[in-house]
Amino acid sequence: MSSPVHFEKQHLIRFHHCDPAGIVFYPEYLVIIDELIEDWFTEGMKTSFADLHAIERIGIPAARIEVDFLSPSKIGDMLCLRLFVTRIGTKSFTLTVEASVGETVRLRAVLVRVVASLDGLRSIPIPDALRARLQPYLLTEPQDGRGPKAT
Amino acid sequence: MSSPVHFEKQHLIRFHHCDPAGIVFYPEYLVIIDELIEDWFTEGMKTSFADLHAIERIGIPAARIEVDFLSPSKIGDMLCLRLFVTRIGTKSFTLTVEASVGETVRLRAVLVRVVASLDGLRSIPIPDALRARLQPYLLTEPQDGRGPKAT
Amino acid sequence: MSSPVHFEKQHLIRFHHCDPAGIVFYPEYLVIIDELIEDWFTEGMKTSFADLHAIERIGIPAARIEVDFLSPSKIGDMLCLRLFVTRIGTKSFTLTVEASVGETVRLRAVLVRVVASLDGLRSIPIPDALRARLQPYLLTEPQDGRGPKAT
Amino acid sequence: MSSPVHFEKQHLIRFHHCDPAGIVFYPEYLVIIDELIEDWFTEGMKTSFADLHAIERIGIPAARIEVDFLSPSKIGDMLCLRLFVTRIGTKSFTLTVEASVGETVRLRAVLVRVVASLDGLRSIPIPDALRARLQPYLLTEPQDGRGPKAT
Repeated sequence: MSSPVHFEKQHLIRFHHCDPAGIVFYPEYLVIIDELIEDWFTEGMKTSFADLHAIERIGIPAARIEVDFLSPSKIGDMLCLRLFVTRIGTKSFTLTVEASVGETVRLRAVLVRVVASLDGLRSIPIPDALRARLQPYLLTEPQDGRGPKAT
Repeated sequence: MSSPVHFEKQHLIRFHHCDPAGIVFYPEYLVIIDELIEDWFTEGMKTSFADLHAIERIGIPAARIEVDFLSPSKIGDMLCLRLFVTRIGTKSFTLTVEASVGETVRLRAVLVRVVASLDGLRSIPIPDALRARLQPYLLTEPQDGRGPKAT
Repeated sequence: MSSPVHFEKQHLIRFHHCDPAGIVFYPEYLVIIDELIEDWFTEGMKTSFADLHAIERIGIPAARIEVDFLSPSKIGDMLCLRLFVTRIGTKSFTLTVEASVGETVRLRAVLVRVVASLDGLRSIPIPDALRARLQPYLLTEPQDGRGPKAT
Repeated sequence: MSSPVHFEKQHLIRFHHCDPAGIVFYPEYLVIIDELIEDWFTEGMKTSFADLHAIERIGIPAARIEVDFLSPSKIGDMLCLRLFVTRIGTKSFTLTVEASVGETVRLRAVLVRVVASLDGLRSIPIPDALRARLQPYLLTEPQDGRGPKAT
């Protein structure tokens, strides 16, 4: 998968990410992806993820996730994480995240995030300012059709 | 979804599961499901999850997950978790987990778990003893076809 | 340590509590103790920990912890947790928690928790109703003097 | 506290570190400190924390912690973490960690870590190579005597 604009970041696998089998305990990957999304807001889209929550009182809870764990990761691995926007809907958007070390893809995730007001926890239309920031990351190439659908 | 045999357990939502929006931080649901799978081994299938790892040196890492988060959960909610086996393959099996409070389904998850030797971390055929224990939980009713495929 | 009234609960060590060394990753013990404190509120003191936060808007953040990790715990261990109140101050109280398996003490913790209004996050005097519930758990025997001091 | 040699690193407070009160859930601070210790090994002492575990089969489990939580942290806060060695014993060493934002100290922690063989989980004398790397970080100024004692 390639994109004119995507967000990319390195993430070190830590002792505390790993389980007694010596590999990343898989829910920890989702915490790592959550950090990636935060950094994408702050560093990529140049808008504060913290302020979005604390000041605008808007959150982006998960509506759906699909993750394929393709090969295990161990302490000391430096993951290269790449984030793409693969859909912008009315009240939600879809992200695809790949984590790899060198040529080996460790996981591929598709995440549907809903835009929600934190006061009452109901979904709201994506604010125009956020929509404008998402747009440049939208991957327009044909996908393989496996992605999730949501409104 | 109904089954002649499934595994069911209550799980209390704790303060530490919840995020600044006051709802369960979604990776925590996967930790809760991991506890459910452990209890299913020990209490449902009457085989020790701890011994599987420590003595038999077998693990069941995640190969794929799909989760729909249908409505949020808050501190003090008592989730009713139900686990079904929806596929038994050669080296992996598929579980479906539903979490609900009363009539409201909070999430629905499909999880492909691979049987792996912890010495070398390679997938192995499901041992006969484990296969025999999985079998009674296999849901034989027609599914809606959305479930993941794996070997 | 003995007490006419203390709160006691079993807690199973899970796969997800453990690190690549095969033993409990120590911050997980503090999450386990947090669950114990919740259960003590709800089951011991018969007052809802969830309502305390959501309705009364009162929290009990940690002001200080001291923990001695005396021997390691592994997956499948059933910890016996015992909680004592060792001090009731004006705005804070001190708990002592011991975790053991059989005769072996795994850890001993002293925790100072402050009563705080969640609106503004400032410490407040312990409400009379909570003070009355804490009182029966107060350990009146002489201590060894190592406990922390706080207001 | 000042030191000719200490290890210093910034750490961003994330959404996932925070609880429903909107502040860092305190066990998460200990995970953050665990990352700091890893980085100190790798970046400060120029020895691989991953290799220490995977190749040398040596771990440094916690024997004791003391933490004072002096003021709360919120999402978006950039903590400045400073690590000092305050004791080098036969089989263990003591670290002091301070986290601050500007002039405000958020927490002060004293941590006793034991050197242990991962094969059998017994404490061992600090290897000479590690002792030599610890030495430059040893704070020689008089302390206030509150620090923990251990062998």
